[in-house]
Amino acid sequence: MLAEFELIRRYFMLPQEAQATDGVALGNGDDATLLVPKAGHQLAVSVDTSVIDVHFPCDAPAYAVGHRALAVALSDLAAMGATSRWCLMALTLDQRAFTEHAAAEQWLADYAKGFHNLCQQHATALVGGDVTSGALTIGVTVMGEVPAGEAMTRAGAKPGDVVAVTGALGGGAGGLSHWQQGGRDVSHPLLRRYLLPEPRLAAGTALRGIATAAMDISDGLLADLAHLRTASQVGVVLDVEAIPLAEGLVEQCGLDAARQAALSGGDDYELLVTLAPGDVARAQASLAHLGLPLTVIGQCCEALGVSGIAATDYAGWQHFSGGER
Amino acid sequence: MLAEFELIRRYFMLPQEAQATDGVALGNGDDATLLVPKAGHQLAVSVDTSVIDVHFPCDAPAYAVGHRALAVALSDLAAMGATSRWCLMALTLDQRAFTEHAAAEQWLADYAKGFHNLCQQHATALVGGDVTSGALTIGVTVMGEVPAGEAMTRAGAKPGDVVAVTGALGGGAGGLSHWQQGGRDVSHPLLRRYLLPEPRLAAGTALRGIATAAMDISDGLLADLAHLRTASQVGVVLDVEAIPLAEGLVEQCGLDAARQAALSGGDDYELLVTLAPGDVARAQASLAHLGLPLTVIGQCCEALGVSGIAATDYAGWQHFSGGER
Repeated sequence: MLAEFELIRRYFMLPQEAQATDGVALGNGDDATLLVPKAGHQLAVSVDTSVIDVHFPCDAPAYAVGHRALAVALSDLAAMGATSRWCLMALTLDQRAFTEHAAAEQWLADYAKGFHNLCQQHATALVGGDVTSGALTIGVTVMGEVPAGEAMTRAGAKPGDVVAVTGALGGGAGGLSHWQQGGRDVSHPLLRRYLLPEPRLAAGTALRGIATAAMDISDGLLADLAHLRTASQVGVVLDVEAIPLAEGLVEQCGLDAARQAALSGGDDYELLVTLAPGDVARAQASLAHLGLPLTVIGQCCEALGVSGIAATDYAGWQHFSGGER
Repeated sequence: MLAEFELIRRYFMLPQEAQATDGVALGNGDDATLLVPKAGHQLAVSVDTSVIDVHFPCDAPAYAVGHRALAVALSDLAAMGATSRWCLMALTLDQRAFTEHAAAEQWLADYAKGFHNLCQQHATALVGGDVTSGALTIGVTVMGEVPAGEAMTRAGAKPGDVVAVTGALGGGAGGLSHWQQGGRDVSHPLLRRYLLPEPRLAAGTALRGIATAAMDISDGLLADLAHLRTASQVGVVLDVEAIPLAEGLVEQCGLDAARQAALSGGDDYELLVTLAPGDVARAQASLAHLGLPLTVIGQCCEALGVSGIAATDYAGWQHFSGGER
């Protein structure tokens, strides 16, 4: 195992010279990392675990496994409107899964590249971690900062606010389905959505101060909307036909299944926000430089619950069962 | 799985009223937690993963599994002289391991109690987490604070400094051995050391400003001492006979094996520090109110490497191989 661990250290040790600029007073290699939080800011922290055969297929490309494990965690910071700064990675790895050393080395190199590239893209320093032996499991703790009192939460939506989403939905479920049917061309738009989701950090900070509530869509629109409705104590009238569908989704499975995927599929990692109707144009303009659309898909109302969709559209969806009226 | 998850939420959701006093602006239940770092302090962060059958036996008491997973992570904060403030827990749990629902419920209740009690003991708020399905794996991220520039690191030891340890060593290895031989009485001193280690947080803050270098002993004295020697670029002359041995260890396995356990066994979670010879009495006095001894076990020197022990004492010890002279 020692050789494996040295390999991992080689891939994951933060170069000392990179640290000072990142608010890192003491990086990897001591008992703990010392960070320098920015004055006047709150620290936004979240942890997400990705387990083989649960959160990603065992034969997913290593690059995607690394990218995805970080992306799903960063998506939570995006939802708060926080700027990502640091992350820690707890990697549990079963070296027996590799038939030869070279295969393990290649897997790790690709995995590290996926993780590091996304770190770099979002100015996030990998400041610590732990490597252990066991079934492939990746726990990523992300830490970001947001000016004190300015974070977006799930709790601010008011009746009359419109409900909007960034990007398009259903791509996560569509991509998984494509993968399960044997699709392996990672440039396929649905596979790209499933394997290499883009955390909407820039959109999150752009919408801060405009959106009244926000969260990311990880468990599916209806399931996550239920969390937002509960936190804000509002109901929502959905306009299902307005929901933007991921590129290639209708072609793959037809319009009805595409809408079902958009409503109930998971792994989209778009932002779900509410905002005053008069702020829609401003919110859309704030995302224009990102090339990211913001689409109104409904409106908040006093009567709790969700309307505008047939009951069959979400019947049996686990996250949606129980406690709804 | 849903019922399981609701159970877990019940055990691990932070009560809202407990938050304000803990520097928690927004607790569990949103996309991320919002924390309020103390001005003038650095943030000390570390993550540790505990995997079933790797870091603890599959039949270890659930209370101990919860306690231990947090304790090993807190031990890293202790080594920096940081005050623990917050933690996040990523729990991966295989519900198929339980033959009946009641057993799962009992296991979780005990596990949560072990984790929460230690949280409470060290004024550490559990501010977030993730629960996923898979082989039992617990990733704990701990966050503490230390006045800027005052953290202890592994790098400050100078030739002439003495080497000292808190408490006694070998109890981790002795306890594991006792468990493997069928011992199940958790009040046995060695088992207590192995299953319920006490992170030395109070000792860490007490030694801050006195110790020139510090780390925790998790992989065994010699292995960890090697890290400290490398970071500080010093050698060490050990006085093996001075090493304090855990209660019950000599009785269990004889003096030679006890010393071997103290030198090379892991899981002791005591602090290893260096300090100027003139500061020993002051350091010991600073721990007196904790009832925790501090014992000098060697001295730093210019010549790199470690002396004072026979080569056979550490031959073949994995952590010790390679790179030593």
